[in-house]
Amino acid sequence: MVVGVVGLGLIGGSFAKALKNGGRDVYAWNRNKETLAAAKIDSVKQELTKENIGECELIILTTFPQHCVEWLREFAPFINKETIVIDAAGIKRSICADCWEIADEHGFTFIGAHPMAGTQYSGYAHAKSDLYVGAPMILVPNANMTDMERVIAIDKVQDILRPCGFGFYTITTADHHDKIIAYTSQLAHVVSSSYANNELSLKQDGFSAGSWKDLTRVAWLNPQMWSELFLENSDYLSEMIGKTIDNLVRCKKAIDDNDKEALEAFLAEGDAIKKQSEKKEQ
Amino acid sequence: MVVGVVGLGLIGGSFAKALKNGGRDVYAWNRNKETLAAAKIDSVKQELTKENIGECELIILTTFPQHCVEWLREFAPFINKETIVIDAAGIKRSICADCWEIADEHGFTFIGAHPMAGTQYSGYAHAKSDLYVGAPMILVPNANMTDMERVIAIDKVQDILRPCGFGFYTITTADHHDKIIAYTSQLAHVVSSSYANNELSLKQDGFSAGSWKDLTRVAWLNPQMWSELFLENSDYLSEMIGKTIDNLVRCKKAIDDNDKEALEAFLAEGDAIKKQSEKKEQ
Repeated sequence: MVVGVVGLGLIGGSFAKALKNGGRDVYAWNRNKETLAAAKIDSVKQELTKENIGECELIILTTFPQHCVEWLREFAPFINKETIVIDAAGIKRSICADCWEIADEHGFTFIGAHPMAGTQYSGYAHAKSDLYVGAPMILVPNANMTDMERVIAIDKVQDILRPCGFGFYTITTADHHDKIIAYTSQLAHVVSSSYANNELSLKQDGFSAGSWKDLTRVAWLNPQMWSELFLENSDYLSEMIGKTIDNLVRCKKAIDDNDKEALEAFLAEGDAIKKQSEKKEQ
Repeated sequence: MVVGVVGLGLIGGSFAKALKNGGRDVYAWNRNKETLAAAKIDSVKQELTKENIGECELIILTTFPQHCVEWLREFAPFINKETIVIDAAGIKRSICADCWEIADEHGFTFIGAHPMAGTQYSGYAHAKSDLYVGAPMILVPNANMTDMERVIAIDKVQDILRPCGFGFYTITTADHHDKIIAYTSQLAHVVSSSYANNELSLKQDGFSAGSWKDLTRVAWLNPQMWSELFLENSDYLSEMIGKTIDNLVRCKKAIDDNDKEALEAFLAEGDAIKKQSEKKEQ
């Protein structure tokens, strides 16, 4: 069972390591040949090329969104019609639209994918075979597939990715994915960065239990990658940032007005929705 | 060694349990007598009264800030001049000013204190003897103490509290405490609540790795207690909320303008300050 991995950073490298451990043959493409050489020592069987790409049952695109599309366009003529291609990008509308078009033109199957895992570190050196264990995996199949085609393709993806140990799969549309992700992931990074960006962050030693640490965890990020993701999803994300600003303004006004009733009501709303959503998780 | 604990909620209850385990005799005051009766089974030796309060070497006030002051005013005439009284409130300027005045009038010592620990749960049932293990403890001595008086008093507090296992002590002023805490703790709760207060919190199942969970952890809070703390520290907190709003507005503008350079610069600032502050922690 041959799997192609495009990009050997944290995400692609972790796929390569998990799949190799699970008995798959991993062919990998990477711009930097030194990283590729290093990966051949512990996870990659051989370089993924136009000559051998036809052997892949699954190909996973893990480079930046725009690069994924360019790469797929270049390699598409050499991909087998039985092959399923997935990506790993944090937004789905734009990348799925482009990749579905390329896939339709060349007769193979593309399914948008978003593995919900990561760390603040990047690069193959930090990749690990258990990065995806227990993590949610989101799949976005093309709406033009028949029910039967979709079931068979998703079953095949799940079977090939079994060694990754994903906790559960969510099947959704690109639009729904981008709307929810704008809140759960992108806004979380925006808010964390906005909170951390304060000179008092450098003076918090001894003045913090866990709140500062939790709130700033995802402020440690890759600015280039997240900027690209944010701008690809700017409509939904901008709306979410606006909503958070409105909440902060409301809280600030209650404090400035010394209005305890309004302040309590505001905090009680957040408390109630947090408790309610935690219950949904159980 | 007798320690008085005023209030048997999460904070006071955890003090009582840790101190009892460490061989101290705990006398406790609590409004609700049923909780007091329950605590007598596992941590409290007897009720703290005006008759026996003179036996206490240390008294810890753990009720809401305003109530701490009222309670201390009522019991002050019965407190021994050798006794040290501390509190556990999340703000220090107002409570210290009031309690220092009461202490000076009656001849005992008051030191402001803020144990940096807690959970989303409240009440004696959730109190635990290891709540403070490794946690930072902040002490705010009165500026009118001599160096010698301060060293002796702080040494005594640390000795009596040894069974709690605090990780380290920070000695500071009420003003500095309130300024830094406005950012590290209060703003963290405001931002978390503002982020969580979104209907999409109820739809995040399967669409979130750890970001949503981390960002919303402290949105689960006690609205009455935090409102009181926020309003006691409104000047510093309002300024901090304003700064976060400014950051969010700057980020939103870069996204709305499709300005990748400005967006990257913004995210890079948060990333840099987070990394810098983490290094300071090591």
